[in-house]
Amino acid sequence: MLTVDGLQYSHWSREIFEQMREGGVDAVHATLVYHETTRETLTRIGEWNRRFEAHSDLIMPVQAPSDILRAQQVGKVGIFFGAQNCSPIEDDIDMVTVLRQLGLLIMQLTYNNQSLLACGCYESEDSGITRFGRQVIREMNRVGMVIDMSHSSERSTLEAIELSERPVIISHANPSFFHAAKRNKSDKVLKAIAENDGLLGFSAYPFHLKNGPDCTLEDYCDMIARTVDLMGIEHVGLGTDLCQNQPTSVLDWMRNGRWSKEMDYGEGSASNAGWPQPLAWLRDSRDFPNLIEGLRDKGFGEEEIARIMGRNWLALLERTTTPMV
Amino acid sequence: MLTVDGLQYSHWSREIFEQMREGGVDAVHATLVYHETTRETLTRIGEWNRRFEAHSDLIMPVQAPSDILRAQQVGKVGIFFGAQNCSPIEDDIDMVTVLRQLGLLIMQLTYNNQSLLACGCYESEDSGITRFGRQVIREMNRVGMVIDMSHSSERSTLEAIELSERPVIISHANPSFFHAAKRNKSDKVLKAIAENDGLLGFSAYPFHLKNGPDCTLEDYCDMIARTVDLMGIEHVGLGTDLCQNQPTSVLDWMRNGRWSKEMDYGEGSASNAGWPQPLAWLRDSRDFPNLIEGLRDKGFGEEEIARIMGRNWLALLERTTTPMV
Repeated sequence: MLTVDGLQYSHWSREIFEQMREGGVDAVHATLVYHETTRETLTRIGEWNRRFEAHSDLIMPVQAPSDILRAQQVGKVGIFFGAQNCSPIEDDIDMVTVLRQLGLLIMQLTYNNQSLLACGCYESEDSGITRFGRQVIREMNRVGMVIDMSHSSERSTLEAIELSERPVIISHANPSFFHAAKRNKSDKVLKAIAENDGLLGFSAYPFHLKNGPDCTLEDYCDMIARTVDLMGIEHVGLGTDLCQNQPTSVLDWMRNGRWSKEMDYGEGSASNAGWPQPLAWLRDSRDFPNLIEGLRDKGFGEEEIARIMGRNWLALLERTTTPMV
Repeated sequence: MLTVDGLQYSHWSREIFEQMREGGVDAVHATLVYHETTRETLTRIGEWNRRFEAHSDLIMPVQAPSDILRAQQVGKVGIFFGAQNCSPIEDDIDMVTVLRQLGLLIMQLTYNNQSLLACGCYESEDSGITRFGRQVIREMNRVGMVIDMSHSSERSTLEAIELSERPVIISHANPSFFHAAKRNKSDKVLKAIAENDGLLGFSAYPFHLKNGPDCTLEDYCDMIARTVDLMGIEHVGLGTDLCQNQPTSVLDWMRNGRWSKEMDYGEGSASNAGWPQPLAWLRDSRDFPNLIEGLRDKGFGEEEIARIMGRNWLALLERTTTPMV
């Protein structure tokens, strides 16, 4: 069964790539950068090029959706890049095309804070998509870079969907009806994503889950079933947000970038500052078969499970990443 | 007749692209940068992406040699990028692959001065290829980026040829026997280039020519004939170094970059500080047919002329730019 994970950000290693293969994962949306500048983003790409060279028996780059099928055929994991913030383009619209040429298939317009493009979900005021943001949305549409609003706030998200000529995604978050969190999404946003033919990737990051690290597989699959009722079976997939073996310095970088002198704990708190405990049923990529079982137990049919596990992600990339000529 | 110019650096405009088509030019090695950093190089690529978009009826990017034939077929000018210095990779070997991904097919190891890789032809001491240079040569070989020694000095050039597993080129210069200039090349270097299956592109930049701007077409073609005797008909092509409509500020950037507070006049002098006068028989790309006529008058056969005018450049790129896997 084609399996695509719509977000991971791990301390990449051969062991992790082997776990992906063991768990039957065919392609992963890998976070390339959080707050890196354009130049720093190239360094991250350089690091990935070394990984592709060193582990060419296990992983391969995905430049186009067809590469995902090719990865599946040859038994490798296809890696497609996403940026969690718009910092890689700095203030330069030309960097959208340049980074797309380098394989950046997905970019979030914001990461929690106000960006040059839109507003993040941690700001108290959301003034919507900026002037630069409108230009960038058009350019992302043109070159086939997917607009991801996972860390954006409500008004900006709705406006991005309205402005974009192509589907918009939320690569990793859950419905607020399942668990009220700043990062989770209202029914209104989820419906707009579905109407726009976009996609929601279900997060397995404990801060996005009912009962946190104790969330059961049954509850998780129940959330999926309820979301399918809301959005339709075509518009959901996985976006586990698996972050394996990362030091807390990476958590600090995610949360604080270069923007704060004081520690910002993001979804955590001073008394709960570290990485959350992993879920018992999704410790790492080897556990993806548990999700298939959980969906079966929930009563999903095989065709529906295939969509949720990967086919919907593939179809979404097919309808959003081809350049408009 | 397939026509490839192995170096131009003009103030690019629609008019210049139209002149190329009028002169029957099918592909041009366009200088992307002189002393730009990695980030600045991306800005230059961004500017080219805009040109490709705005003038898509006239020009197209060349990512692989086959694109040159495609350009000829559809009646456009194929543009392939080269860097005149190694500044785009800074001190970071990973940038070789990243820039190759963005279409940088050719890179000079030095521009007149000592670089991090090798020695330029204006230094008084040439200590040869550096430690970093050896690594970069291997990496350029691996990913298929052509090593260009046009502005390098003799020892560094010979060592680069020795170290490189693939042909090395001099994209734009002339033999010293025709005109003694710091930028022109000794018989020893030219023979080594030929033995290595590389290529010399004949410059039409007046500073590289006997009698400067007054050099006749006949003398130029005589130089070609003598060089063919030395290097063989497979190892020569054009590299006109046409620089049209550039302000003197660009000449200053070429010559001084950020490295000198005092004006360095390069091939010129205080009393002759500006751009040289163009040749009467090669004012711009519309005059390429003059070269064909000149070669015929010199007694070259049609097959030989086809090689000099473009086929040799195509063959060189075919044997040097495919990635080694």
